[in-house]
Amino acid sequence: MNSLKKVRIVGAGLLGTSLGLALKSQGVVVDFSDLNPTHLALARDLVGFTSSSQSELSPELVVIATPSAAFREIIREEFRLNPQAIFIDLASTKTESILEVEMITDLAPLFCGTHPMAGRENGGPHGARSDLFLGRPWVLSPTSTTQQDVLSYVEDLVRSLGAIPIMMSAPEHDRAVALISHLPQLTSSLLAKQLSGGPETWLALSGQGLRDTTRIAASDPHLWTGIIFENREQLRPLLVGLRGDLDALIAGLDQPGVTETLLKDGRHGRSMIPGKHGGKSREYTYLPIVIEDQAGQLASLFNECAKILVNVEDLTIEHSPGQFTGLITLALSKKDAELLSQHLLASGWNVHAPRQGQ
Amino acid sequence: MNSLKKVRIVGAGLLGTSLGLALKSQGVVVDFSDLNPTHLALARDLVGFTSSSQSELSPELVVIATPSAAFREIIREEFRLNPQAIFIDLASTKTESILEVEMITDLAPLFCGTHPMAGRENGGPHGARSDLFLGRPWVLSPTSTTQQDVLSYVEDLVRSLGAIPIMMSAPEHDRAVALISHLPQLTSSLLAKQLSGGPETWLALSGQGLRDTTRIAASDPHLWTGIIFENREQLRPLLVGLRGDLDALIAGLDQPGVTETLLKDGRHGRSMIPGKHGGKSREYTYLPIVIEDQAGQLASLFNECAKILVNVEDLTIEHSPGQFTGLITLALSKKDAELLSQHLLASGWNVHAPRQGQ
Repeated sequence: MNSLKKVRIVGAGLLGTSLGLALKSQGVVVDFSDLNPTHLALARDLVGFTSSSQSELSPELVVIATPSAAFREIIREEFRLNPQAIFIDLASTKTESILEVEMITDLAPLFCGTHPMAGRENGGPHGARSDLFLGRPWVLSPTSTTQQDVLSYVEDLVRSLGAIPIMMSAPEHDRAVALISHLPQLTSSLLAKQLSGGPETWLALSGQGLRDTTRIAASDPHLWTGIIFENREQLRPLLVGLRGDLDALIAGLDQPGVTETLLKDGRHGRSMIPGKHGGKSREYTYLPIVIEDQAGQLASLFNECAKILVNVEDLTIEHSPGQFTGLITLALSKKDAELLSQHLLASGWNVHAPRQGQ
Repeated sequence: MNSLKKVRIVGAGLLGTSLGLALKSQGVVVDFSDLNPTHLALARDLVGFTSSSQSELSPELVVIATPSAAFREIIREEFRLNPQAIFIDLASTKTESILEVEMITDLAPLFCGTHPMAGRENGGPHGARSDLFLGRPWVLSPTSTTQQDVLSYVEDLVRSLGAIPIMMSAPEHDRAVALISHLPQLTSSLLAKQLSGGPETWLALSGQGLRDTTRIAASDPHLWTGIIFENREQLRPLLVGLRGDLDALIAGLDQPGVTETLLKDGRHGRSMIPGKHGGKSREYTYLPIVIEDQAGQLASLFNECAKILVNVEDLTIEHSPGQFTGLITLALSKKDAELLSQHLLASGWNVHAPRQGQ
C-alpha cells in the first residue's frame, strides 16, 4: 500500500470506523462522511482527521460503508465527486449493489464489491476496533468489468489489514451468507421470541445453551431488517427447508427415531463448521484448574504458563458471584496441556483432568 | 451434612460422577453402580472407593443418576435393597418419575425428585467435575407425600454442594425445561442440519454467530432423544408455536415490517434471560487490550490486575493462528474497568475504549 495517500469512507458505523482506525495505523489520511453528526464526530475523533490541508487531497479510494438502502444514491454522488478513485462497498449483500454499479458504465471498471466477514453485536463507531478484520475472511465480488489493477489494489488493501481475501461472485456470496449468517440470525430471533411466554422463575433456570443460541437475537432489529429484505430471495428456500424439517419433527414427535435422526443430522451439520478464522478445525485440549483468590491466582497462573513457554489459545472463567473459588479452563495444544498440567501439579495447583474438544 | 456417612449413586455418568466427586470432598463414602464397566471403573477411580469394609455400610442416600428409561426398574430394586434410605433422582424430566414413585406407597415419602441445572457437551464420567453444581439452580420436585425431614435433608445436600435449591412441581419443571433447554436444543439441531447443504467454501466464511447458535447441536443424539421423547407433550405446543412464527416470517418475507417485528420480539425475549448462575442480569464493562508475545504479556496483564486488586469476571482471547498479536477483552465491573484502563494506559499498554454490555 505504498502509493496510498487518502481514503474517503462514507458511513461512520462499526465497519467504516474500524476500517478508518486500521488505515490510520498505516499512516493513511482518512476522511469520513456520515449523515449522523454524532457518529461522524466520534469517528473523526477516533481516527484523528484534523488538518484542513489534507481535506483538499483527492481520495485514491472511496469506501461505501452505509446500509444497502442508501447505496444507489451515494455511489452516484461519490463517483461524480471523485471520478478518478477506486470504489468498494462493505455491505452484507452483494448482488443488488453490483447490478446497480454495472448500470454506470464508467464506474463499473473502477468498482469492486466487498464484504468483510467481521462484526459485533455492538454496532456504531463506539464498537470500532482497528483489529476487527484481523484473520477474518473478506469476500471480493468484482463487477463484470472490474479492471485487473483495481482488483489487485483491493486485494492488497485487504491483506494489509490482516484479512484473507476470498474471490466469490455476488450471487454465490449472497447464497453463502443467507446460509451461514442470515438464517442463524432469524433462527436465533425465532427461538428467543418464544421466551416471551415464559415466567421469570422458568428463565432463572437458563443455562449456557440458551444463552449461546440466543446471543445474536440481541442484534439491531433495524439493521438486520434491511439485510434480510435485501437477501430475501436467497433466504426463502432455506426458511422453507427449515420449516420442512420442523414439520417432520413435530409430525414424528411420538417416534424417537425421527428425533434421533434430526439430532444426528444436526451434529453432522455442526461438525462442518471449520475452526476460528476460516482455518481448518483446531482440536484444543481443555485444562480445568480450580483457583481461589482470583486476581492474584490468575496472575500466578499466567506466570507459570510464561515460565514454561506455554501458549494459551483461549480460556473461560466460571465462578459464582461473591465467591473466591472459581474454575479456569485453559484451551491449549495437546502438548502444552500435558506440559502445563505436570508443571502445575508439581507446584501444588488444583489441576483437573484435561479433556479433548473443539 | 454432619450425619451423612455413605451415598450410593446408581449411574456413573457426568452428573452421577460429578456428584460423587463433590460428596467425596465432604468426606462422604461414595458407592457407585453402573452397567457400563468402563464408566464404573473410572468413576470409582476418580472418587477413590476402595475399602471393602465401607461397602458393608448401608447408604443413607441413594441417587438415581441413570437415563429416565431405566428409572422404573432401578428405583424398585434400590428400594428393595435399601428400604431405610432417602432417594433422589437427577433426571431431566420429572413428571413420569414422580408418577412412578407415587405408585409405590412406602417409597413416596422417602423420595424427592431433583434436577440440577448443570451439564456440559462432554458427557460421561470423563467430563465430571466436583464443582459442576457450584452456583447452579437445582430443582426439587417432591412427591405428594414426601416427608418434611426428607425434603430438608435434600435441601441441605444441595446447598452443601454450592447449588441453589428451587422448589417446583414436577409438571411445572417439565414445562420450564421444555422452553429453556429442550426447545433450544431442537432449534440448534434444526439450524445445524441446514448446513449440510453448504459447500466448504461457504462454511469457511462462518463467524461466531453461527458457532454459538449451533454449539449445542454437537450434543449426544442418543441421550437427547430420550429426553425429548420423555417431554414431548410439553414440547409439542412450543414447537407448534415456533412453526407458527416461522410460517408468518416466510409469508411476510416481502414486507420488511413483518421481519422487523420478529427481530424486535426476539430481542425482547433474549433480554428476559437473567445473568449467569440465575442471579439478576449483570452489566459488565468490556475492556479491549491488544497484546503481543502472548504468554508473557498475559502474565504481565494479570499481574497488573492483581496489583490494583481488579477482579476479572470473564475474558476472551482473539488471535490469529501463528501470530503473536492478539486482542484480550476483559469483562469487569464499571469501576474496575475505569481503574484498570487508567492504570494500564499509564504503564504504556495498548488499551482500547471500554464498552458496556451483558
